[in-house]
Amino acid sequence: MKTQVAIIGAGPSGLLLGQLLHQAGIDTLILERQTPDYVLGRIRAGVLEQGTVDLLREAGVSARMDREGLVHEGVELLFGGRRQRLDLKALTGGKSVMVYGQTEVTRDLMQAREQSGAPIFYGVSNVQPHGLKDEQPYVTFEHEGQVQRVDCDYIAGCDGFHGVSRQSIPEGVLKQYERVYPFGWLGLLSDTPPVNHELIYAHHDRGFVLCSQRSATRSRYYLQVPLQERVEDWSDDRFWDELKARLPEEVAERLVTGPALEKSIAPLRSLVVEPMQYGHLFLVGDAAHIVPPTGAKGLNLAASDVNYLYRILLKVYREGRTDLLQRYSELALRRVWKGERFSWFMTQLLHDFGEHKDAWDQKMQEADREYFLNSPAGLVNIAENYVGLPYEAV
Amino acid sequence: MKTQVAIIGAGPSGLLLGQLLHQAGIDTLILERQTPDYVLGRIRAGVLEQGTVDLLREAGVSARMDREGLVHEGVELLFGGRRQRLDLKALTGGKSVMVYGQTEVTRDLMQAREQSGAPIFYGVSNVQPHGLKDEQPYVTFEHEGQVQRVDCDYIAGCDGFHGVSRQSIPEGVLKQYERVYPFGWLGLLSDTPPVNHELIYAHHDRGFVLCSQRSATRSRYYLQVPLQERVEDWSDDRFWDELKARLPEEVAERLVTGPALEKSIAPLRSLVVEPMQYGHLFLVGDAAHIVPPTGAKGLNLAASDVNYLYRILLKVYREGRTDLLQRYSELALRRVWKGERFSWFMTQLLHDFGEHKDAWDQKMQEADREYFLNSPAGLVNIAENYVGLPYEAV
Repeated sequence: MKTQVAIIGAGPSGLLLGQLLHQAGIDTLILERQTPDYVLGRIRAGVLEQGTVDLLREAGVSARMDREGLVHEGVELLFGGRRQRLDLKALTGGKSVMVYGQTEVTRDLMQAREQSGAPIFYGVSNVQPHGLKDEQPYVTFEHEGQVQRVDCDYIAGCDGFHGVSRQSIPEGVLKQYERVYPFGWLGLLSDTPPVNHELIYAHHDRGFVLCSQRSATRSRYYLQVPLQERVEDWSDDRFWDELKARLPEEVAERLVTGPALEKSIAPLRSLVVEPMQYGHLFLVGDAAHIVPPTGAKGLNLAASDVNYLYRILLKVYREGRTDLLQRYSELALRRVWKGERFSWFMTQLLHDFGEHKDAWDQKMQEADREYFLNSPAGLVNIAENYVGLPYEAV
Repeated sequence: MKTQVAIIGAGPSGLLLGQLLHQAGIDTLILERQTPDYVLGRIRAGVLEQGTVDLLREAGVSARMDREGLVHEGVELLFGGRRQRLDLKALTGGKSVMVYGQTEVTRDLMQAREQSGAPIFYGVSNVQPHGLKDEQPYVTFEHEGQVQRVDCDYIAGCDGFHGVSRQSIPEGVLKQYERVYPFGWLGLLSDTPPVNHELIYAHHDRGFVLCSQRSATRSRYYLQVPLQERVEDWSDDRFWDELKARLPEEVAERLVTGPALEKSIAPLRSLVVEPMQYGHLFLVGDAAHIVPPTGAKGLNLAASDVNYLYRILLKVYREGRTDLLQRYSELALRRVWKGERFSWFMTQLLHDFGEHKDAWDQKMQEADREYFLNSPAGLVNIAENYVGLPYEAV
């Protein structure tokens, strides 16, 4: 087989890159280890930055999102029971975010891929990129018992942190930066109306809480829990009781509870590898970086990488600007680090670190809360990062 | 002897509090261990916030400052050789800072005290506050060989971190928060024209540099140095050479060098004790908190404490509002923590921490620089803290 851009991974970043390139008349082939149902079964974030929304529209996959997604022009932050609404639109000169689950984004992209007729292989195994530094890279994989080979110009590694793409870069090339946090998020998904029309990020002595949502009838709640906690120890009742205990009474009394559709614990981690490219291979999204979920930057940073790689490839194929290829990592990383900074900042601002922070750092955390929430410039600072900093021109 | 407010310490905070209270017709008596010349010999910061300037004007001691002080409407930050001017006036809606040495402020205040005829004793020893929780507090001290006693209503502890005031609060009452930084500032004062008409704060791989000034003919420069450095090892030539090596060429070539009037190394430390009061004793300035010099908040936070204590005492004596006394610590500390936060933030932003920060934290420090210096809201954030956040009403 032959293609121009081989894409490893059919998560939202691989599918979005594929859709954008396909629209531009550039051949792509997508390889995915899992089945479509498995991919759709992963519960992830649901807050899209303005730039991500714009990119989905540009890719022509926004019809359902624009119909069913919820535009949020504000978000609430709670400290010590005091509720403070950030008027995102006013603070950022008109920007907002879109609440639309990653699962739905992926579903729309899968459908678009199917309709396009462009090749996508699910359930493949032994995917392996070759010749990353040679004239002619290619990818081998097994599909329905057959070993296949696809020759290509470029390979996009959109296969997440545990994927083969990053692992096929020789040892010693990448530098890894990491921060592990001493807690996780216990999440619960339920078909209940959200407790508030906007998201609530709440700091509480018992631990952080996020009241999120996927739609007007589906809620997603999170509790900060110690890392060693086990999901089996959390009955639905225990979850709802703990959630109520961490919310102000006027919010807690409006909470509609119901059976959990899904319940899981995710550890919090910040991680970046540099550079995000090696020869003909370009890493995209989770394959190169992980953020803690505070601030909902995971999918948005993946979209940011897709934006840069797409625009570079467009100029490569249309204008012969192969010189731009070497700028991908630098451009992508500049924005990645800003997203990492914001996710790290918000994680510190909102969580209870207990004995994991010394007394001075705890005080600085309190002082950050006092300053940022009480200064108009501090509020703009949080708001402009939350809706997403602008992309640079390629 | 009798007075209304006994003030321990004749540094700028004790003298300013004394001057404000004297003007309001409230009796004060000031006690100082050192001689006036010794007090004036201490070289300290030279950047006054708008609020400090206003308070000095209110105290009627601003004539020379308004004549000789330099109003700075901007400040330069340098990262990786790139110069960025913060237009303080534009970023803060019209505020600026005043460059006027702490030594000069102290000199003006000493002169005002002398002219007022209000009692001030220099060179006293064995100062000791008594009866802090009793009906009638008093202070004993030795002056010219005689033990003296002054009865008073309140005691203001303006005697710095090593003074007797804080030490006379029983053990277990105060909680102390502290951060020690792994470097110091080597400062040099010289009668040379400043290299730039505004201050330059420069981050450099060799270490931080501050190009400050006291007047149009007197410069103050600082170099970040390791803690174990000894001032004897720094000849004037070595200092100037190192300073030039850390500045961009177009700045370095304008540098006018000359013999050092003073050269010293100061360690960097953040420290706060809570609460700032005990019975009839109120701690002011360095007696309760220390900031690293980055951002020039030391004298300004002392002035902030003076502001709150003065306004509370005014209402106590004029309106009988003794209930306000217990609010001093809370009011003063709220602003102190904001100043501590900013000084800590700027110290991290500008210094080279070498192996004292792990790779992740180094990256977050870089990301802070990238974000704050490239976002208009980030610039407002730095500027509004630099010129000083507003005082709360008492």
